Amino acid sequence: MNSLLLELGRALPAGRFLSDPDVLSSYAHDEAERAPFAVPGAVVRPRSTTEVATVVAFCAEHGIPVIGRGAGTGLSGGANAVPGCVVVSFEAMNAIVRIDPEERLAVVQPGVVNEELRQAAARHGLWYPPDPASAPWSTIGGNVSTNAGGVCCVKYGVTRDYVLGLEAVMGRGDVVRLGRRTAKGVAGYDLTGLMVGSEGTLGLVTEVTLRLRGARAAERTVVGAFDGLAAAGRAVAEVTASGVVPSALELVDRHCLRAVDDWKHMGLTESGDVLLLARCDAPGPAGDEEAERVLSCFEKGGATWSARSTDEAEADALFAARRLAYPALERLGAVLTEDVCVPRMLVPEMLGRIEDVAAAHDVTIATLAHAGDGNLHPMTVVPPGDDDARARGHAALERVVDEALSLGGTVTGEHGVGLLKKRGLEAELGHEVLALHRAVKRALDPAGIFNPGKVFT
Amino acid sequence: MNSLLLELGRALPAGRFLSDPDVLSSYAHDEAERAPFAVPGAVVRPRSTTEVATVVAFCAEHGIPVIGRGAGTGLSGGANAVPGCVVVSFEAMNAIVRIDPEERLAVVQPGVVNEELRQAAARHGLWYPPDPASAPWSTIGGNVSTNAGGVCCVKYGVTRDYVLGLEAVMGRGDVVRLGRRTAKGVAGYDLTGLMVGSEGTLGLVTEVTLRLRGARAAERTVVGAFDGLAAAGRAVAEVTASGVVPSALELVDRHCLRAVDDWKHMGLTESGDVLLLARCDAPGPAGDEEAERVLSCFEKGGATWSARSTDEAEADALFAARRLAYPALERLGAVLTEDVCVPRMLVPEMLGRIEDVAAAHDVTIATLAHAGDGNLHPMTVVPPGDDDARARGHAALERVVDEALSLGGTVTGEHGVGLLKKRGLEAELGHEVLALHRAVKRALDPAGIFNPGKVFT
Repeated sequence: MNSLLLELGRALPAGRFLSDPDVLSSYAHDEAERAPFAVPGAVVRPRSTTEVATVVAFCAEHGIPVIGRGAGTGLSGGANAVPGCVVVSFEAMNAIVRIDPEERLAVVQPGVVNEELRQAAARHGLWYPPDPASAPWSTIGGNVSTNAGGVCCVKYGVTRDYVLGLEAVMGRGDVVRLGRRTAKGVAGYDLTGLMVGSEGTLGLVTEVTLRLRGARAAERTVVGAFDGLAAAGRAVAEVTASGVVPSALELVDRHCLRAVDDWKHMGLTESGDVLLLARCDAPGPAGDEEAERVLSCFEKGGATWSARSTDEAEADALFAARRLAYPALERLGAVLTEDVCVPRMLVPEMLGRIEDVAAAHDVTIATLAHAGDGNLHPMTVVPPGDDDARARGHAALERVVDEALSLGGTVTGEHGVGLLKKRGLEAELGHEVLALHRAVKRALDPAGIFNPGKVFT
Repeated sequence: MNSLLLELGRALPAGRFLSDPDVLSSYAHDEAERAPFAVPGAVVRPRSTTEVATVVAFCAEHGIPVIGRGAGTGLSGGANAVPGCVVVSFEAMNAIVRIDPEERLAVVQPGVVNEELRQAAARHGLWYPPDPASAPWSTIGGNVSTNAGGVCCVKYGVTRDYVLGLEAVMGRGDVVRLGRRTAKGVAGYDLTGLMVGSEGTLGLVTEVTLRLRGARAAERTVVGAFDGLAAAGRAVAEVTASGVVPSALELVDRHCLRAVDDWKHMGLTESGDVLLLARCDAPGPAGDEEAERVLSCFEKGGATWSARSTDEAEADALFAARRLAYPALERLGAVLTEDVCVPRMLVPEMLGRIEDVAAAHDVTIATLAHAGDGNLHPMTVVPPGDDDARARGHAALERVVDEALSLGGTVTGEHGVGLLKKRGLEAELGHEVLALHRAVKRALDPAGIFNPGKVFT
């Protein structure tokens, strides 16, 4: 081990600094299937902001890369280690500092798991909406770093919409408080919003103040099966045009349905090729009316079958197709996942282009989509050991990114840029906007230590 | 006139460059009552982004200050001219480029008046929520620059929550597009959010892409009169604790009520010392239920009188007390306006401290508050020519800012920092966060030309 890093270890309380090679390996990468990584030089598990500041000040002085890490559930390689780096893992800074029901806010350390915060808020009759699929494992720090989305974001917004303020350790080890704890405030630049989604390239977040909502009304579930993408696309367009804002509007394509059927024998493919799953949560009779209108939109779109669930258990069973799709695909091999977002009316067009790309590259692309906000997750499965399939899948998904851009979309709706989307980001932003990014990066991270090589070069 | 500025004039199409002294004087300041200003060196009224870029490139080359200006309705001096500057007034770039009902977004030039956008959106069954009191006159460009709020923000958020993307001319005259037109997206830093609320210090916004909502359900209005601040504060706390999120929750204090009564003889002061005005807009019976719950909260808080309006005309009459308060005070002299925001449960405490400050400085401070989000507008009236009253009023409001900070509040909830809140901003942010602001400013405005001396030095 590098003697400089050992010096850092001696500057920290016992138990924080990890250098065992097996341990280091387990902090080398996140869950991205196709991003490069290295074994870190060291891992630090701080227990306080002061310890984080010690690490950053030391690394800034010596030019050592610092990589923040939550639960490692990222899908873009954003937490992947680089040679000689220090990974700062926030797993031991996992306290819910305070839930304030009167001000409707929570103050949490970055290592708090999303689902734990949701449960703690629920005990006060409150709700933290952002609900990435990783919610049972991913941390608030990671969610903040990637500006995580989820299923209910179509109605309730993404992580940035809930971050009122934060504490962070910046480029020289200086500890700052950004943002506010009031409901409103316009004092100075929105550095809080700038930190959210910056994927650890501008500093390390050590505490987050989050806005909470009151518990929402019960959700109604509406399901429709369609015999093709065109019909499902028409139904989505009908919902948008109706003015109803559902609290979820998910699309599961036939490749996903087939993978779930092969595993769970749910008979999903019998009713149609594409499934749309919607939820409505307006309170009282208005919610029932919303659900009826969505049902009617599904019918107008040409659903071969549609229904409104009458109880929670049935609704959960219907959403199982969505929830089980990813694990069903993982049974077949490594899943390469994309995360493009297009204007919502172009979802059917984008789905058609994905089919064309799949055919051209001789791969199967299965797609889950947050159809209500145009965010698609095309996925291709690489059977174990099939390097040729991996190369074709990789090439196909790069092409999918280009198609999304050509429709006025973005290369990442909610997973972040990390390492996987750097090429796409350059294409999306262009040289001048990237130059602004670099200027901001240099301004806030003058030593260039925070997650170097991620997001942009 | 400065020969350099005349050279700029020759670089622009006819009619854009204004140098008549009377005209220049009319662009010298916004509506802040106590901020310094100068007559600008020139005024440019561009008609295209290219013309804005010409101005910025020229000014960057020659180190000439550039000050963007919307309708000049600001209350913090943010648009005030400095000696030798070029004021870029966006009044002629006032086109609604597009309203896209399917994607629920609007693309507008910065000179579009807020109310005009709201009306245009309404023709498509859509709604642009941010509703500053200046909405009939203020422009979207100005609203973006100050991150304007308003009455419905307690439920629907502020301007930043609606800006998806924008076009801007940055520090060297380079034209960039920031943000996106998709519902979601996390590609790169949130430079869009950074520009919003930056008060013209980082660049000039030349086009804005705004998220729209569907038209909302009819609002119910609930009014309560209270015999003191403590009772009104209890009622606000009851509403917050009830879980109801009203679409407006406004407080009008006795000084405001008296000024309106003296002018309009509405008998407002007969029912109580403080008025709370709430609106609820959940659709269908849920909205009625919300209104009943708010009414019950007002009663629990100790309202001397409370009622729910049964029709739109009555509701408008009730809200007139809020709407007429500012003009009623203006009849008595120049109104010095503050704009602090405190944690919402501390509104009663803050109102009490405002009373104490008023007594200590021998002034009357009238307060309007967006009580639901803790944003207070304490105001003091300076009779014409009374310099001593002006000095006392100024000192009292500075003290009000300090009190808000000591309660964990912010120096500006929605008006912006401009010139008036610079001292308060320094106290609120502290040296290290201000250093981050300066670093970002230098990074994005290397020539230091955009609105110099505003927000921070």
